Amino acid sequence: MLHAVIMSGGSGTRFWPQSRRDCPKQLQVLVGDRTLLQQSVDRLDGLVTAERTWVVTNVVQATATREQLPSVPGEQVIEEPVARNTAACLGLAAEHLLAADPEAVMLVLPADHVIQPDESFREAVQAAVALVEDDRRRLVLFGVPPTRAATGFGYIHRGDPLPGQPNGFGVSSFHEKPDRETAEHYLATGESYWNSGIFTWRADRIVEALAEHQPAIGDGLATLRAVLGTDQYSARLQETFAALPAISIDRAVLEHCQDSCVLEASFCWNDVGSWRALPEVIGSDESGNCLQGPVSTVDVHNCIVRSVGDHLVAVVGVEDLVIVQTADVTLVARRDDEDGLRELVERLAEEGRDGYL
Amino acid sequence: MLHAVIMSGGSGTRFWPQSRRDCPKQLQVLVGDRTLLQQSVDRLDGLVTAERTWVVTNVVQATATREQLPSVPGEQVIEEPVARNTAACLGLAAEHLLAADPEAVMLVLPADHVIQPDESFREAVQAAVALVEDDRRRLVLFGVPPTRAATGFGYIHRGDPLPGQPNGFGVSSFHEKPDRETAEHYLATGESYWNSGIFTWRADRIVEALAEHQPAIGDGLATLRAVLGTDQYSARLQETFAALPAISIDRAVLEHCQDSCVLEASFCWNDVGSWRALPEVIGSDESGNCLQGPVSTVDVHNCIVRSVGDHLVAVVGVEDLVIVQTADVTLVARRDDEDGLRELVERLAEEGRDGYL
Repeated sequence: MLHAVIMSGGSGTRFWPQSRRDCPKQLQVLVGDRTLLQQSVDRLDGLVTAERTWVVTNVVQATATREQLPSVPGEQVIEEPVARNTAACLGLAAEHLLAADPEAVMLVLPADHVIQPDESFREAVQAAVALVEDDRRRLVLFGVPPTRAATGFGYIHRGDPLPGQPNGFGVSSFHEKPDRETAEHYLATGESYWNSGIFTWRADRIVEALAEHQPAIGDGLATLRAVLGTDQYSARLQETFAALPAISIDRAVLEHCQDSCVLEASFCWNDVGSWRALPEVIGSDESGNCLQGPVSTVDVHNCIVRSVGDHLVAVVGVEDLVIVQTADVTLVARRDDEDGLRELVERLAEEGRDGYL
Repeated sequence: MLHAVIMSGGSGTRFWPQSRRDCPKQLQVLVGDRTLLQQSVDRLDGLVTAERTWVVTNVVQATATREQLPSVPGEQVIEEPVARNTAACLGLAAEHLLAADPEAVMLVLPADHVIQPDESFREAVQAAVALVEDDRRRLVLFGVPPTRAATGFGYIHRGDPLPGQPNGFGVSSFHEKPDRETAEHYLATGESYWNSGIFTWRADRIVEALAEHQPAIGDGLATLRAVLGTDQYSARLQETFAALPAISIDRAVLEHCQDSCVLEASFCWNDVGSWRALPEVIGSDESGNCLQGPVSTVDVHNCIVRSVGDHLVAVVGVEDLVIVQTADVTLVARRDDEDGLRELVERLAEEGRDGYL
């Protein structure tokens, strides 16, 4: 049976101060009237029932996650004791799925992505499931055809076509966050895709592949498998999970495995990775501004301005800024200065001003 | 006797959103721990008692003005029914003074200026009073030696020296807000002063001069003089004052009168006319930033950032901005775009969003 695993434990620092430690961006309404996490579950309607939907998150966000998803069984919200990147996260999820359903097929979804339209998404998932049913070894990556020379995404270069699926290809190689020139070349070839972070594979197959390519993770998962469903699980998880290497599933398995393949996904996709992504998702006006909430501007261009409630944000004579007003923090930043934003957030942490994080 | 008349009815639009209609900048703490209005009265200590201190303001600000100045008799807070610029304002004040003291000498002070040190101010006032006592016709303007080629101030060019006062001169001419090149020339000559808006003259003399140079104002004042202290005053003020021409005392009288003279004032002075003036008053750090309240910055230069309470303003990778956080409004503006700020405030008024003004 097909199960969905939604990865929802991120902190979303690049969306600070909207995204906060105890309420990161996936738990917030950025677009439309449901949170990104809720939209991720809504999108599964007709594809995966709530009884087969799983969410991996962290201890801090677990309560809010369960509250936002009342239809998902509480025990299927899996809590990571510490963050250990996506390989350990998905290995842990796979073990939970296998305990419930030894034949489980896993659809992996990040909680903080925007995908439209839902219908195209569902068609792609069905095609991915068919690829896995054809060959149980297949690890299917969803590749999004690039629409611009983005430098902030990972790229997948496709290889030979797969038989029987015109949108399916082997994987020739991966390239994480290329420079502008390289990204433009990738865009021109028509044979490269953005790595969406959405995957489909059998749960037993990813556990097998992790054991083969990452023995430390494989051993840790075997330890946990032995205690899953017992009263030793919680204590064992604490010690075992923390000891696992923090590595992405791409680097841990997908980049090395002959069975990785890419499915060209026809939906519009955005990882909403930073403030810069917001205009791509919700659009901008004729001045290039993306304005949300009570905002008034004079001679303003290419700015992202967001306020909440009745608080007025007035902007005069500036361009290329991100301005975000929350109840206790206001951010004013050069739109492309993500390094500066990271530095500021790190400094607040160093200064012990955790209340703002 | 010497009386002080503090002009305090301004709206301070260029300091929006800190300065608001019902609480303009002179009623707020911008520097130190007392409001600008309170500092204006404090500065008179040893020079003019509270019993001889008068404040002209408008109806909206009258209550707050009396609350901030408990030592000033409530009836000496004169309420203008409408704003009619400084000629009408000072004519009205002069009539009130004359009713209390026919020999009154008037020291005129704007409520929203920063002056330091107080001792130099007091010495200048004493010199001005001496000039008026020497010749009852004299209208003394306080001229501040310019320290930079400011284009936002009015300039006074001095004429012949006055006998017996080394810092006193006749007035050769006036020049309002020169361009940069002209301002630099004025700075170089050493014979031009900033017009501080601080004046000293006999109350009967300014009434006489207004009648001579501005008959409409003279007639209006005569009408009010006849009812001052009676129960007709309030109603008569409403109709008479509104009909007076709105003109500055400089343009109405001082620029035309042979008796205008300028006293070189040795104090540091700033009219705090706009956000740009704040660093001149409270200083800036090695990055050229002027930061007040909970503010955190990364790679920020020549910015004025002000927050209040616990609200954090985080600023990243920008320069030459004014960022002001208040309880219900946040302003982000290019530092020198005062026209844009005025346009924005006017638009809010047009849109009926008066709550933000």
